[in-house]
Amino acid sequence: MRFVDIIEKKKENQVLTDEEIQFFIDGVTNNTIPDYQISALLMAIVFNGMNEHETAKLAQAMRDSGDVIDLSSIEGVKADKHSTGGVGDKTSLALTAMVAACGLKVAKMSGRGLGHTGGTLDKLESIEGMRIDLTDQEFKKQVNEIGLAIIGQTGDLVPADKKLYALRDVTATVDSIPLIASSIMSKKLASGSDTILLDVKYGEGAFMHRVEDAKRLAKAMIAIGKKLGKDTRAMISDMNQPLGNTIGNALEVREAVETVQGHGPEDFTELCLKAGEIMLMQGKLAKDEKQARSMLEEVIRNGKAFEKLCQMVSYQGGKVEQIKNTKLLPQAKYKTIMLSREEGYIKELKALELGILAMELGAGRATVDDNINYAVGLELKAKKGMKIKKSDEICIVYHDSPLTDQWKEKFYKAFIFSDKKVPKTPIVEDILS
Amino acid sequence: MRFVDIIEKKKENQVLTDEEIQFFIDGVTNNTIPDYQISALLMAIVFNGMNEHETAKLAQAMRDSGDVIDLSSIEGVKADKHSTGGVGDKTSLALTAMVAACGLKVAKMSGRGLGHTGGTLDKLESIEGMRIDLTDQEFKKQVNEIGLAIIGQTGDLVPADKKLYALRDVTATVDSIPLIASSIMSKKLASGSDTILLDVKYGEGAFMHRVEDAKRLAKAMIAIGKKLGKDTRAMISDMNQPLGNTIGNALEVREAVETVQGHGPEDFTELCLKAGEIMLMQGKLAKDEKQARSMLEEVIRNGKAFEKLCQMVSYQGGKVEQIKNTKLLPQAKYKTIMLSREEGYIKELKALELGILAMELGAGRATVDDNINYAVGLELKAKKGMKIKKSDEICIVYHDSPLTDQWKEKFYKAFIFSDKKVPKTPIVEDILS
Repeated sequence: MRFVDIIEKKKENQVLTDEEIQFFIDGVTNNTIPDYQISALLMAIVFNGMNEHETAKLAQAMRDSGDVIDLSSIEGVKADKHSTGGVGDKTSLALTAMVAACGLKVAKMSGRGLGHTGGTLDKLESIEGMRIDLTDQEFKKQVNEIGLAIIGQTGDLVPADKKLYALRDVTATVDSIPLIASSIMSKKLASGSDTILLDVKYGEGAFMHRVEDAKRLAKAMIAIGKKLGKDTRAMISDMNQPLGNTIGNALEVREAVETVQGHGPEDFTELCLKAGEIMLMQGKLAKDEKQARSMLEEVIRNGKAFEKLCQMVSYQGGKVEQIKNTKLLPQAKYKTIMLSREEGYIKELKALELGILAMELGAGRATVDDNINYAVGLELKAKKGMKIKKSDEICIVYHDSPLTDQWKEKFYKAFIFSDKKVPKTPIVEDILS
Repeated sequence: MRFVDIIEKKKENQVLTDEEIQFFIDGVTNNTIPDYQISALLMAIVFNGMNEHETAKLAQAMRDSGDVIDLSSIEGVKADKHSTGGVGDKTSLALTAMVAACGLKVAKMSGRGLGHTGGTLDKLESIEGMRIDLTDQEFKKQVNEIGLAIIGQTGDLVPADKKLYALRDVTATVDSIPLIASSIMSKKLASGSDTILLDVKYGEGAFMHRVEDAKRLAKAMIAIGKKLGKDTRAMISDMNQPLGNTIGNALEVREAVETVQGHGPEDFTELCLKAGEIMLMQGKLAKDEKQARSMLEEVIRNGKAFEKLCQMVSYQGGKVEQIKNTKLLPQAKYKTIMLSREEGYIKELKALELGILAMELGAGRATVDDNINYAVGLELKAKKGMKIKKSDEICIVYHDSPLTDQWKEKFYKAFIFSDKKVPKTPIVEDILS
């Protein structure tokens, strides 16, 4: 097999065979195909795409390029969820505690943040002592005992994806549905859970700007899951404004705690409940949405969800007092209350810009080597659709160094007002399976 | 400037600026852009193309990536012609002698053959002693004195093209009009002539299979020439059957000699005359086709064209006796007369297949490192449209080792017969300027 013929075939919009896709991924993994040929194929895929079968084969070959986690020693249905990333997305912290409190097993591997999007591991690490580097044995033991663990990636998972992603990043070949879908799904498939819930975000602060593109991506990932025998479902959720009210690591832990205790922000609570419903149905713990929702509401009301979160923190060496009393979490030196300069209904709350503003405070990383300041961030007091008067509080900024005028100008530009009433949009736009 | 942004731009079907194209070619020439980024851009160009201005800028930047030959010390209009390559294409040998005999200056750099297409340099070297490696000084002196020289490439011409071509070859990015046009034209522009005639071939034995694609390529090259101030014209010529009757180096030299003497094959003679007309008009030596043709017919009739060929061979150290008596050219050990197995009108004479069959005899190179056997090749006795009876001679094969049955089978498959009369097609389909 000559790789140039495979490139030619895809350039001519032909369907690649399983053997050709396997040859491609083997060559990527073993470094036997030069990067210049790989990038030419990637660009041809950007233009001509891949059908469902090709995409599933690609995901499978990528999954098998490295370790595949075996969770069979954990009893019951092991559930996983994945978010395509957004601003203020602390879903994994709250949601996993809720569904685990309902009896689902969650053995989750999470990632770190980059750019305007945060990462679950960074948020967890704002809790003192929290270990995200459990051994394989500790990880499985914890999930068997308490039903929940969130850790960093272990083993050599999907090396082909690491290589491909690095190349896509510098060759303008990131935005391709089959490449994104196979990249995400190969990692999910390699992490060994039985069910996968995908939170595919759309909007200004998400990777996919348009809802139709988010749906296309979701469908491509569901198709991969189905072909490879995993119950895979997706929610399409709104990322035109930040999720919940907080952006920043310790601030988001506090909000996750409030949410599992039943007094979180409306949009974030609703997202967790919708996601929880799907996960409980995937895990066969509930027969329908209604039953699932009452189970979730029950564990919030009776404190079991919060208890589960505490248990996880405690098992992983974290200081439980910090989540029992979130005032003990890292605190920023300064707290600046931002007052509105305009009045009217909030029409847009630019998620991307607010994510970058929080990053600039130190809450996120501009490059992978940057350090994070867990304490800093934003607490929004205004969200889309709210009526705001001049000098109303619209945000509290938590910061360690003085805010520059430039930062403030950018901040105010993230709030777009309208004279007319602005209808609220549902946080979950659609559910696909 | 980040190269990834340039790739992104072309992927999004936007027009690249002059600065971006210059940055690209500088990076290729100086090895500051990694191959994997170059190949991603090449593939994006294959899909989204380039407009006339971009293509001309690309050709210009490529031209300027290395030496540009200065022919100003040669008096008069310096004319160049270029063929996109075909089977049995000995045009440069005969045509240049004809136009030089009419007073045009031809300072030509030619190439070698690869695969089914031959190269002018290889053909010239079948003449004993023939030097194609003249010094710059010898080259210009010869053209000044006798008006004609054909040599191999001197200096470091268009290094960016060498790099890009090597990469295109292994990344399935060869077939792109702007990339082909800029590659050819950058080399022509760097060789320093005043006028350029392009012989763009179409058909089964040519790079462009369809006449429309040949025209698109011709138009792209003419546009480059115009933008960069060179009188550039093109003929679109038929390469569905070999040009003339011979394929193979010494055989083609013999046929070129016969043609400049006025008794060459009809199609090849006509191609040379048409090309000569255009070149004489480009060089302002004739006011129209009619005048040009009578000048060309005159130098054939009075022997001046043949004399010019002898002069060039003599100046470049070649054994003139071999062209005065072509029986002295290298002769193959065996001569096998092939008789038709079928009867009817010849509908197709597959040029690609016949080119490969000649290459397999040793007349061409399968890879760049192969040696050439100057003596071997094919002499066709049948061409498209001819009525053939069973056992008629259709070809003489000149060979040095016995013909295999497999070779013979492939040979016969190159001749396609029809019961019905087959109309002849003109050798020159169109002339563009």
